[in-house]
Amino acid sequence: MVGGGQGAFIGAVHRIAARIDGEYDLCAGALSSNPERALASARELGLADDRSYGSFEDMAAAESARNDGIEAVAIVTPNHTHYAIAKAFLSAGIHVICDKPMTVTVDEADSLLDAARESGKILAVTYNYTGYPMVREARAMIERGDLGAIRTLRVQYAQDWLSEAIEADGQKQAEWRTDPARSGAGGCIGDIGTHAYHLACFVTGLKLEALCADLSTFVDGRRLDDNAQLLLRFAGGAKGMLWASQVAVGNENNLELEVYGDKGGLAWRQEQPNELTFTRLGETPQRITRGSPAASDAAARATRIPAGHPEGYLEAFATIYQEVAAAIRAARDGGSPGDVVFPTGEDGKSGVAFVDAAVRSSAEGGIWVDV
Amino acid sequence: MVGGGQGAFIGAVHRIAARIDGEYDLCAGALSSNPERALASARELGLADDRSYGSFEDMAAAESARNDGIEAVAIVTPNHTHYAIAKAFLSAGIHVICDKPMTVTVDEADSLLDAARESGKILAVTYNYTGYPMVREARAMIERGDLGAIRTLRVQYAQDWLSEAIEADGQKQAEWRTDPARSGAGGCIGDIGTHAYHLACFVTGLKLEALCADLSTFVDGRRLDDNAQLLLRFAGGAKGMLWASQVAVGNENNLELEVYGDKGGLAWRQEQPNELTFTRLGETPQRITRGSPAASDAAARATRIPAGHPEGYLEAFATIYQEVAAAIRAARDGGSPGDVVFPTGEDGKSGVAFVDAAVRSSAEGGIWVDV
Amino acid sequence: MVGGGQGAFIGAVHRIAARIDGEYDLCAGALSSNPERALASARELGLADDRSYGSFEDMAAAESARNDGIEAVAIVTPNHTHYAIAKAFLSAGIHVICDKPMTVTVDEADSLLDAARESGKILAVTYNYTGYPMVREARAMIERGDLGAIRTLRVQYAQDWLSEAIEADGQKQAEWRTDPARSGAGGCIGDIGTHAYHLACFVTGLKLEALCADLSTFVDGRRLDDNAQLLLRFAGGAKGMLWASQVAVGNENNLELEVYGDKGGLAWRQEQPNELTFTRLGETPQRITRGSPAASDAAARATRIPAGHPEGYLEAFATIYQEVAAAIRAARDGGSPGDVVFPTGEDGKSGVAFVDAAVRSSAEGGIWVDV
Amino acid sequence: MVGGGQGAFIGAVHRIAARIDGEYDLCAGALSSNPERALASARELGLADDRSYGSFEDMAAAESARNDGIEAVAIVTPNHTHYAIAKAFLSAGIHVICDKPMTVTVDEADSLLDAARESGKILAVTYNYTGYPMVREARAMIERGDLGAIRTLRVQYAQDWLSEAIEADGQKQAEWRTDPARSGAGGCIGDIGTHAYHLACFVTGLKLEALCADLSTFVDGRRLDDNAQLLLRFAGGAKGMLWASQVAVGNENNLELEVYGDKGGLAWRQEQPNELTFTRLGETPQRITRGSPAASDAAARATRIPAGHPEGYLEAFATIYQEVAAAIRAARDGGSPGDVVFPTGEDGKSGVAFVDAAVRSSAEGGIWVDV
Repeated sequence: MVGGGQGAFIGAVHRIAARIDGEYDLCAGALSSNPERALASARELGLADDRSYGSFEDMAAAESARNDGIEAVAIVTPNHTHYAIAKAFLSAGIHVICDKPMTVTVDEADSLLDAARESGKILAVTYNYTGYPMVREARAMIERGDLGAIRTLRVQYAQDWLSEAIEADGQKQAEWRTDPARSGAGGCIGDIGTHAYHLACFVTGLKLEALCADLSTFVDGRRLDDNAQLLLRFAGGAKGMLWASQVAVGNENNLELEVYGDKGGLAWRQEQPNELTFTRLGETPQRITRGSPAASDAAARATRIPAGHPEGYLEAFATIYQEVAAAIRAARDGGSPGDVVFPTGEDGKSGVAFVDAAVRSSAEGGIWVDV
Repeated sequence: MVGGGQGAFIGAVHRIAARIDGEYDLCAGALSSNPERALASARELGLADDRSYGSFEDMAAAESARNDGIEAVAIVTPNHTHYAIAKAFLSAGIHVICDKPMTVTVDEADSLLDAARESGKILAVTYNYTGYPMVREARAMIERGDLGAIRTLRVQYAQDWLSEAIEADGQKQAEWRTDPARSGAGGCIGDIGTHAYHLACFVTGLKLEALCADLSTFVDGRRLDDNAQLLLRFAGGAKGMLWASQVAVGNENNLELEVYGDKGGLAWRQEQPNELTFTRLGETPQRITRGSPAASDAAARATRIPAGHPEGYLEAFATIYQEVAAAIRAARDGGSPGDVVFPTGEDGKSGVAFVDAAVRSSAEGGIWVDV
Repeated sequence: MVGGGQGAFIGAVHRIAARIDGEYDLCAGALSSNPERALASARELGLADDRSYGSFEDMAAAESARNDGIEAVAIVTPNHTHYAIAKAFLSAGIHVICDKPMTVTVDEADSLLDAARESGKILAVTYNYTGYPMVREARAMIERGDLGAIRTLRVQYAQDWLSEAIEADGQKQAEWRTDPARSGAGGCIGDIGTHAYHLACFVTGLKLEALCADLSTFVDGRRLDDNAQLLLRFAGGAKGMLWASQVAVGNENNLELEVYGDKGGLAWRQEQPNELTFTRLGETPQRITRGSPAASDAAARATRIPAGHPEGYLEAFATIYQEVAAAIRAARDGGSPGDVVFPTGEDGKSGVAFVDAAVRSSAEGGIWVDV
Repeated sequence: MVGGGQGAFIGAVHRIAARIDGEYDLCAGALSSNPERALASARELGLADDRSYGSFEDMAAAESARNDGIEAVAIVTPNHTHYAIAKAFLSAGIHVICDKPMTVTVDEADSLLDAARESGKILAVTYNYTGYPMVREARAMIERGDLGAIRTLRVQYAQDWLSEAIEADGQKQAEWRTDPARSGAGGCIGDIGTHAYHLACFVTGLKLEALCADLSTFVDGRRLDDNAQLLLRFAGGAKGMLWASQVAVGNENNLELEVYGDKGGLAWRQEQPNELTFTRLGETPQRITRGSPAASDAAARATRIPAGHPEGYLEAFATIYQEVAAAIRAARDGGSPGDVVFPTGEDGKSGVAFVDAAVRSSAEGGIWVDV
């Protein structure tokens, strides 16, 4: 693991996610750019001292040289560092599981795809919401035509934790996320808008063609957008709306997707992730639940426990890790990984390009920009 | 009443709404443009034969000449006829309660405002959703500053009854609503988008400055839009998104409003109208219910029965009628009408201008248009 | 109308309910046992002075003597007076619509049934919740076998308005409802428990055989129960639980019914009355909405406006009035009333017997009592 | 681990729960009473062959003799075997984490409490629902007086998976759960009723004094109850209702608790576990969410990730394991375990006594039985 030392949030999430299905052991880390904190964090997590590194470069070099070196690395640092770290590990022949957004620029994303291609190693990006069983279910339903041709969709990711200028008070998570040097040109659009965008594409299989974005910064002194409103046009004529906000008071982590086709409609909410609502044209709305007989193989594959026993965010995250584990095992041992489903470097690049287009559209007054 | 004969939907709604609080008696009508149906409808409703008219012109002339002539007329015909009818009754010195959209063009709206001004009579437009007690509550909360400065809002009105080309099968409601000659240039945007727009403005008090619209027609052969997606910019810097659709499978009459300010956020849904959700920044979300001690005077004024006994669409509609009755009484008897709240001709015109701007924006590819 | 003068709650509800469908005109009343208040109330409601009576006896006598006398009377007084008033009007040949519970004792109920039989007049009891379209739907579903053989049910009616001793502060509604002399031996069990009981029987068609009741009085100084918990055994082996409470903080008017059979289950909540949840064994739960294609004729009959436009408590109440109007019209004009559905004197008596059994069971420590 | 071999459900749950927080390593097991399945299961889980045992007796003996023997054992076998297994491990000086119900008879429970006392080892029972953060929150709220004196509660645990006689078709989970020889005298009441009972007591701190139970068997040929309805009387005068059912079509794992006191009321649902509803007398209902500022230390202690990122069943289960781990560590290393909260042998015995009393009450026709 690179990043995820004391005081970090997402690092701990990755560690639990990796642990849930018993597929990973954490053996090495460059847990902080501060060497002392790195070592202290490593000891807290039970790493051997000689596998706690002061820099990711050292770690990539040393681990690739060991017989028992790590097979895969999880990168859980601020956005601007993803590129160099991921490149170093791929080049060292180590699979990479990288937090999103994959990079800060499209050029970096392209370069990383090249690096992955050259190394033949896996490059996975943790758009973790696609690990939810009912998100898989929604995708399977659309794939098999339950909704018919998609006409329109609405996706939103609303939070409220940045309603005030907490970055000015030293809140660590807020600091780097509102800092263009560390986050890139997108604030809210990059931090959570990109999750919403990926979710919509993952579920529908649609390709975005053009967007019109109006990004706002409502909190005084903030340097990046904290609210993003977009119109979307997909290849084939489908339309969409995307809203991402970090100043929507009363919303904790309200990621929602609604999709409408000519034969049906469905809706899913991350805060109540074990169900989705589906309506076939002219019929009554149904509540399809995780683990129920109605759920398809695609959902069952991501399901651990019976219906009515809620699975949550950590399990969805774990599913990404589990799918990557299957792919790593197949790469190592030969054989087919089966139908593994996880966000790849291509998805990572698509997210970076989306943020880039949204920022450009908004900067020019909210014009339509091709993606 | 003009319109509302056999087979009509909204006419019956107006009649019940007028009856609920016992303020109106239905005594005269030109219930259909078809004279036979007009008479048959009139008899069914218990009107005297000599007060069932074959045309609105006759009705306006005759009723204004009677000592016991009607004080007010309800206009519940297709959109394109509102203007001439309303003008005739205003000119005859009769108060007008007109369904929305008030007219088909902005010019007509201006002309009607003139007619109302000259006659000194009331011109009310039934944006009926503003009659819901919890919509009044939301408005009162924002007025007294519970949400602070408004930053952004999301409003939607999603239906699914036009998911197929039912206008081609002779469904009367669908026929005129999808016919530019009778509906005007807006389809879905005029039929329900204008309700969403009025609701957002009524609750927040914001003035729209510019919009960017992407209107779509998803059903083959349809002549007007059936899905409308808009970005909104309000005076003072607030932003908004508006979605109206009549092809969103699984939505019956899903009018929803969410408003976010720097001190709080609220949400209201028409299909569950007796409550609203309110969150004060940093506090837990509250469920404020109609009739509860937390509801303010503004809501209480529109409330008939205690908390937990749901009031619905007809009661909200009746509240508009009741408020207009108070204004008519004051106009007739002198004295102040008190704080009557109902949508006026100005609101009607604003709705027409909104539809006009949306159609223009979309026709030019989705550009920003000043309103 | 008898009762329902200034300050009363349920009288106003009855008046609106009677008005909604335009089937009744209010022409006479004995609106208060206080003659001055009776007259003032009558004038407020637009009654002619000579049809405002000082006592129900006068009213029954005078109205039955008039050519244009009332056809039906609504009785909206405290419980202990229902019997004498209803008897007087039935004996005078006037149809009776009586609030629930119909009487205070089973003997009175029997005597009233006799009076109705002798007079040949209609005796209806306003168990108004059975007027909701989706309650009718639930009943129709069970009747046609969608749930199979009923196994068990849960019904509750939870309120919180009597959580404190507001009767001691002169709250009029609380005063008589907690006074054994005016309410009868049942407090909460009589006021709302009887609604829950009637609803369960109406929907399922089951007959209660025995019950075991534990009634409590939680508020100091209160003279009647304010919380009632019961186990139920129905003919044929079905079981049930019934909970009624007026001290359940956070519940406004939370009447809920769940029914489970060997082929399916359903649930309905009064506070969200326009839908019911239905699950066929082994299938996904469905949300069946009022006005939707899935709703049967039984629901459609009680439906005024399209799906998604919520109807509420007043409309459900109005449906009872409308059904009684159809029966009155048939009685007057000959012809069949059709499939009118409203709670009758038999239902009224069943409710009184239920309260009586519950009070006896609890008084003896919570033993099983046959009904 | 004892039990939990291939085909078992709850064993896998215990393993994930133990893994989530990284506090346990699975090193030994007697995973099945069938030696071949035991070994195959052990290999699948990566146990060393010499630590896969053919019987729990062998395992207890061998592990207690090893220097690196297990510190604690998880018992996940059918109910009737819990007693002997738990006793063997306690006697061997190994901490015990036992699934519920702890034993089949009260005598066994007493004997096990003695064994635990003598050995000085921990005896924990996995009433796992008490590991949910919002259940801890509810308990903390009641403890600090937010609800005032408790008046009444309603608890239910409704499922539908036994709506048909699937035990006759060889469904393994159903087979032993409906077999008196393996489950004990209680069917549904023992399998899930005991969870509901424990949850109610855990949250409120109330002690049950007497109960009146009506147990039913609705499915033909079934040998134990599949529906249980109870009235409860607690010390101090509080009342309650408990419903447990495995034939309630449409319910997956619907465990719900509502508690009402003289100052407030709260409600929690297992299927939406990240929130609870709380109403202070006379105020608006609040939605308190896991991870939000409103949540107390008691909830925070059981919380891993931020608000809006749902935690589920596995995390709640893991919290029990984590709390036991803290207690084991303190027992081993000295020092205080802090405020660890987990269900103990006393709670286990209380559950067994509850089932025993319910079965006796029902067998005698539904009489009140002291507990």
